[in-house]
Amino acid sequence: MSQYNFTFSEVMTKKPKPLGKQLQFGKYFTDHMFVMEYHHQKGWYDGKIIPYQPLTLDPASMIFHYGQTVFEGLKAYKSKDGETRLFRPKENINRLNRSNARMCIPEIDPDLALAAIKELVRIENDWIPKQEGTSLYIRPFIIATEPYLGVSASKQYKFIIILSPVGAYYKEGINPVRIAVETEYIRAVKGGTGEVKTAGNYASSLIAQEKAEASGFAQVLWLDGHDKKYIEEVGSMNVFFKIDGEVITPELNGSILPGVTRNSVIEVLRDWGVPVVERKILLEELITAHKEGRLEEAFGSGTAAVISPIGELNCNGEALIINNQETGEIAKKLYETITGIQYGHLEDKFNWIDMIE
Amino acid sequence: MSQYNFTFSEVMTKKPKPLGKQLQFGKYFTDHMFVMEYHHQKGWYDGKIIPYQPLTLDPASMIFHYGQTVFEGLKAYKSKDGETRLFRPKENINRLNRSNARMCIPEIDPDLALAAIKELVRIENDWIPKQEGTSLYIRPFIIATEPYLGVSASKQYKFIIILSPVGAYYKEGINPVRIAVETEYIRAVKGGTGEVKTAGNYASSLIAQEKAEASGFAQVLWLDGHDKKYIEEVGSMNVFFKIDGEVITPELNGSILPGVTRNSVIEVLRDWGVPVVERKILLEELITAHKEGRLEEAFGSGTAAVISPIGELNCNGEALIINNQETGEIAKKLYETITGIQYGHLEDKFNWIDMIE
Repeated sequence: MSQYNFTFSEVMTKKPKPLGKQLQFGKYFTDHMFVMEYHHQKGWYDGKIIPYQPLTLDPASMIFHYGQTVFEGLKAYKSKDGETRLFRPKENINRLNRSNARMCIPEIDPDLALAAIKELVRIENDWIPKQEGTSLYIRPFIIATEPYLGVSASKQYKFIIILSPVGAYYKEGINPVRIAVETEYIRAVKGGTGEVKTAGNYASSLIAQEKAEASGFAQVLWLDGHDKKYIEEVGSMNVFFKIDGEVITPELNGSILPGVTRNSVIEVLRDWGVPVVERKILLEELITAHKEGRLEEAFGSGTAAVISPIGELNCNGEALIINNQETGEIAKKLYETITGIQYGHLEDKFNWIDMIE
Repeated sequence: MSQYNFTFSEVMTKKPKPLGKQLQFGKYFTDHMFVMEYHHQKGWYDGKIIPYQPLTLDPASMIFHYGQTVFEGLKAYKSKDGETRLFRPKENINRLNRSNARMCIPEIDPDLALAAIKELVRIENDWIPKQEGTSLYIRPFIIATEPYLGVSASKQYKFIIILSPVGAYYKEGINPVRIAVETEYIRAVKGGTGEVKTAGNYASSLIAQEKAEASGFAQVLWLDGHDKKYIEEVGSMNVFFKIDGEVITPELNGSILPGVTRNSVIEVLRDWGVPVVERKILLEELITAHKEGRLEEAFGSGTAAVISPIGELNCNGEALIINNQETGEIAKKLYETITGIQYGHLEDKFNWIDMIE
């Protein structure tokens, strides 16, 4: 029990658990969920763990009309010894509160949020899949629930946590994916919401994602919304390039999501002594480097896929084939290192793991 | 009965109706709602009118996570003769489908959508308030309901229509409002979703709206997201300025919402022979025109407020007082003309009214 004494109502009949090989991303959900309410006169109250069940919301609830909402994504991993390991949960909770600030949603006590995640994962311990590459995806989110059609911040919210046992995010696993550079639609600009995790960023990206998938690409690479010539990020990942032995990634400029895995990649590279630089990156620079044979590797980083090598960057039909469409050395080593820490095969030298007893 | 034969389940006990003077914007809802389902293998199906009731949705429904949703807003007016009059509903339905296309949501048959609106308003006829300035606000919206956490277009949706008897949108009524020019946050850029009605546009605007309200302003005036120097629109309205006898409004550039009232204002002005131009407008141009005494009027247009005179534009503390903070002649005449057509005091010479028998 945590110090927060969340009420717990246990489900009567547990669901069958999917087999490891059936696992996909975000298709199955566990037996219980965490729910907490907010009212502007009471603050956050009534945190409880209840059977996984539908939400019952007035059709005028502001979430349906004005999209005031934030979310997070993190994972719990099972070690071979049966330990349950959370990867950098405080980073996600801090980002949740930064998202809250931007979206005019009341902040949540970080200790309470962490206690809620831990308590729910502890209860759902049997749902954490054990095979390598699988994990329990944790999705905390907040939605505006006041039934009112005026455009203003809601006076009522729900904070919810649901859990989903997951396999690989990409069908390709850790094999290289093909990415299309998006030149028509834009994801975000400084002054907008691109650097926080809110629904609208993803809704606006779907049209480009559909266009890319129709041509056989896994995701799109977004350019900046101002000049459409600087690299920003991939659909659900931050992005890294290795040129002339140096790893570069777009600097956090107000429209790029500050990924927890992005930050972990940078820390690991620094620890290895690999030069890594956060700066503006022109698309043109990548094209030139590729032409001159200096674009050695490209890969994405994110909670869902951890590290995802990029085998092709396609700019309006021109294909930049990277590293013979094979997984690069740095990407492979980063994947092994970060997942090694996550699953407990490697020492947690960065102090990233939060254990659940 | 329409040709669509929507199922109708009548409510057992009707709610008390608010008195005219109690009416606000979007606080009260009628006894019934329209709901229709979409499944990717069946298309849109099962349109029905049922008692107004909470939606029951899986917490993994995509609307809560990736914000795939669109909405519309239009009004039904009661004439003195007891007629029920819809204002340009086909324009709203066409825009709904343009929003659908941008947000990867399946199109709805426009005739079916119009029939659903009419049938629901007919059933709720007693809910249409009769006093001048009041009306029945109609809110059609579509939400993504597939329970799945992958970032992709949903395979399931709900199309819902709810109705709300409304009074004035602004506390000020048709008195001039004070508007703050927003110079930090941005609403939209070309290539984003600014020209369609989707939740994310409104969610991202709340922080600027709160900042403006805290300083006593009714709304913000958005500048373009690229250069932050061109006028775009006000929070929930398009915007017009009268300079040297000519009325100007920002041209539709891919990031501005093409308002139905905006279009009606332009048509009425043309009919009157008042010069009206859609073009880029620099904020600097307004400041200069004001300094030289040539900024004669400013007003917003939108379904909620119809015409809303702007008495002050505040740019980082510098107040441009317009027309002595009084309602201008053009704004007043436009308000009287457009509401005159809406309520049936004036001839419907533009063929804008769709009657409900």
